[in-house]
Amino acid sequence: MLDRFDPRLDPTFAAVDRAALIRRLKGVLPADGLLSAPEAMAVYESDGLAAYRGRPGLVALPRTADEVSGVLLACAAFGVPVVARGAGTGLSGGALPFPGCVLLSLARLDRILSIDPDARTARVQPGVRNLAISQAAAPFGLFYAPDPSSQLACSIGGNVAENAGGVHCLKYGLTVHNIQAIRMLTIDGEALDLGGEALDAPGFDLMALMTGSEGLLGVITEVTVELLPLPAHARVLLAAFADVRHAGEAVAAIIAAGIVPAGLEMMDNLALTAAESYAHAGYPVGAAAILLCEIDGAAVDVAEELARVAAVCEAAGATEVRLAKDEAERMRFWAGRKGAFPAMGRLAPDYYCIDGTIPRRRLGNVLEEIGRLSSARGLAVANVFHAGDGNLHPLILYDANEPGQMERAEALGGAILEACVAAGGTITGEHGVGREKINQMCAQFSIPEIEIFAAIKAAFDPAGLLNPGKAIPTLARCAEYGAMHVHGGAVRFSELERL
Amino acid sequence: MLDRFDPRLDPTFAAVDRAALIRRLKGVLPADGLLSAPEAMAVYESDGLAAYRGRPGLVALPRTADEVSGVLLACAAFGVPVVARGAGTGLSGGALPFPGCVLLSLARLDRILSIDPDARTARVQPGVRNLAISQAAAPFGLFYAPDPSSQLACSIGGNVAENAGGVHCLKYGLTVHNIQAIRMLTIDGEALDLGGEALDAPGFDLMALMTGSEGLLGVITEVTVELLPLPAHARVLLAAFADVRHAGEAVAAIIAAGIVPAGLEMMDNLALTAAESYAHAGYPVGAAAILLCEIDGAAVDVAEELARVAAVCEAAGATEVRLAKDEAERMRFWAGRKGAFPAMGRLAPDYYCIDGTIPRRRLGNVLEEIGRLSSARGLAVANVFHAGDGNLHPLILYDANEPGQMERAEALGGAILEACVAAGGTITGEHGVGREKINQMCAQFSIPEIEIFAAIKAAFDPAGLLNPGKAIPTLARCAEYGAMHVHGGAVRFSELERL
Repeated sequence: MLDRFDPRLDPTFAAVDRAALIRRLKGVLPADGLLSAPEAMAVYESDGLAAYRGRPGLVALPRTADEVSGVLLACAAFGVPVVARGAGTGLSGGALPFPGCVLLSLARLDRILSIDPDARTARVQPGVRNLAISQAAAPFGLFYAPDPSSQLACSIGGNVAENAGGVHCLKYGLTVHNIQAIRMLTIDGEALDLGGEALDAPGFDLMALMTGSEGLLGVITEVTVELLPLPAHARVLLAAFADVRHAGEAVAAIIAAGIVPAGLEMMDNLALTAAESYAHAGYPVGAAAILLCEIDGAAVDVAEELARVAAVCEAAGATEVRLAKDEAERMRFWAGRKGAFPAMGRLAPDYYCIDGTIPRRRLGNVLEEIGRLSSARGLAVANVFHAGDGNLHPLILYDANEPGQMERAEALGGAILEACVAAGGTITGEHGVGREKINQMCAQFSIPEIEIFAAIKAAFDPAGLLNPGKAIPTLARCAEYGAMHVHGGAVRFSELERL
Repeated sequence: MLDRFDPRLDPTFAAVDRAALIRRLKGVLPADGLLSAPEAMAVYESDGLAAYRGRPGLVALPRTADEVSGVLLACAAFGVPVVARGAGTGLSGGALPFPGCVLLSLARLDRILSIDPDARTARVQPGVRNLAISQAAAPFGLFYAPDPSSQLACSIGGNVAENAGGVHCLKYGLTVHNIQAIRMLTIDGEALDLGGEALDAPGFDLMALMTGSEGLLGVITEVTVELLPLPAHARVLLAAFADVRHAGEAVAAIIAAGIVPAGLEMMDNLALTAAESYAHAGYPVGAAAILLCEIDGAAVDVAEELARVAAVCEAAGATEVRLAKDEAERMRFWAGRKGAFPAMGRLAPDYYCIDGTIPRRRLGNVLEEIGRLSSARGLAVANVFHAGDGNLHPLILYDANEPGQMERAEALGGAILEACVAAGGTITGEHGVGREKINQMCAQFSIPEIEIFAAIKAAFDPAGLLNPGKAIPTLARCAEYGAMHVHGGAVRFSELERL
């Protein structure tokens, strides 16, 4: 579906003299740096939240920070909204074009500028792919820890904009914990340097504020990431369970035992079966659920901790506990996990990925509740997620070509998030708010909190040109959608049904 | 000296009907909750930056968040500046009263509200002492990692306001990395909940923005801190060196070897001799410098890593390497380190603590340069600091009763910071900007960066009532002090001389 934002109905942005804007941008960008034909711009109509589409007015493809600055100055001068985009892998519609906007692709700023193995940092442009950083650091015995599932494709600028996580963030933290500095441009084309080498940069923590700000405050042109020494040893254990509740309880018990796995992932039967037929990982396809638990560090600790994990899993009722016998098997176990999302294509034409969080001790209950909701609504749900963080990713399978299925998928997603909140969790884990969850922000935050968000947004971007309609709702939008803020209590999800 | 801020010269704040303000505050506060007599208020005239003093107009001592809210609403209504204060141990004058302000002490909000050993969190009021949290968590096998030298006295609200560090932050991070949520009040008395249990809270990262904001954005009324499992084993190694350069090189070599100590501290001869006579730690008083390197974790790793540390120190020219033989000796080694600041009282009536950072590999050079500056200016300097972080704390010894000595101490401090910057470092590590370094902010940041700081401040506090004159300079102040912003180049420190 096309996004419901209709610039003709939005009084915020004045009509733009398109020909004049094109002339100005052509003066700033290289010859092949501006797309204006609808067919050329079609690939930019959506990001990883494929159900939403929006038509940009123009697509800018700068190659340098100076060109980015020129594009921003042009947008500011013409009062035209601008939406920054990395690799377009985001799952909450953060790079969804505002209709008629200038879509600003950072894909061509893709150079690794330097690696300093002594300081353990890499200075990179925003379009550098996540995995490319670790590949470039590997010869120095270093790696970049945050590893979203999309790490082959996603770029570091988008990772910072969404504060991306991944399998390893249980031990190593989110993007914000693994970067040292950001260079950004304001909507006025001014360069700001945020963070830095010092332990605790003076002034307000603008680097943390910018991280996860979803393109609302400025455009990232350079990131200094922190690198970690590659762990001496890493081994992964696979535990199979005859029901999901036991698997959930094992997760809570592992963490409660004081073990800090490098990754602790869970897949239910539907997910592991699909992943197995896609990636041939060697998963036990008869299991109701499996856990993958990776421990890294010194060899003797790894062995000792894995023995503890195995004991906890057996006490929680595991039907099988298996250590990857070598590095090749370890890579296969993870290839299955990383292939779970693409493997969904074998089960249904479309899936809707939910991103809720719950307290770990409630994993068993909530997974059972998701199973009940799935049966009652007649749509299959595969669960594959960061269990150690309590970060669920139920994948609702549907067929968008069947009338009404998409709406039913969205309604089921709402019910699942409601179950997360009822269990003491939240409506979002690591995928960002973007366009997808903007109405739920009204439920999660109080009016003074939303007012502060808006005031900070205005401090950077008074005219509201940067990625409008994302992440931070206006109070008018909250009123329109009828969302109710109830701190620490029940939240009405009726507005989800109306998305 | 009294602070140079003179409200009679500051047109920002209107004259206040003091009697009416007192009536209003008496209606909000308990009977013993408002001080107005000069002698009662005298102890609030300065914080740990004792050379600066300011006279508050009134001192409010609320006992509940509601009373804090009432005080803030009164200050907003009367347009009177308000300065929040925890334990008053800060070293940059962050709690220095703006003359005539309402000094808002959070000392009476001193309850630990709950400890959740499963979630590994503690919910505490701002006046709870840092060490009291670890003491309360110890029965659960947990501790709160950030440990400023003042941890016996300093309170968590101030720790958050300054983003405090400490010996353990090399391994465990700063305050911002060890808290989960903040409840704060705006100047309008509105409660905001920042952060939370979720992996990555939606919206802008206001918790990180608030952490280290030095009282400029709001008043903290509750903090949820994260607790860590007490390490199974912790051992400390003492290495002695015949010159400071070798000690500095050993620090860089330890970190470069991929070792992550729980603490890596350095003391030069003056510091260790004073500490020894104060705390009887068993330090080798003939050494030019000592390192204390603590390793924690599983027993076998601790032993293995300590062997590596010892080898690195010996290769760097250590004259003695000694392991604390038991827990009692370990505690003595640390008692000496923690006693180094108070021990300075045996050497001189006053000391001025500098807080610069430098790249670790430059430690040897910069320490030698500090020695040269100290000799040339005729003031002794003791060095005791977080070597692993490259965070120097030169203590300049002087006698404020000797005419001109304080000014010379400040000038020497400026020269030392200039040496830090010349070595690729910064003018502040972990003590905050406060009143002390506000002019240097003009040198460290560009005009657009300072404008963004000011806009964020205005988003929270449009009238500028919260802790005015601290942390973030106005552009007018920068112009007045003639500071020059030179990114990545030399910085003029002439304004330091004029402090």
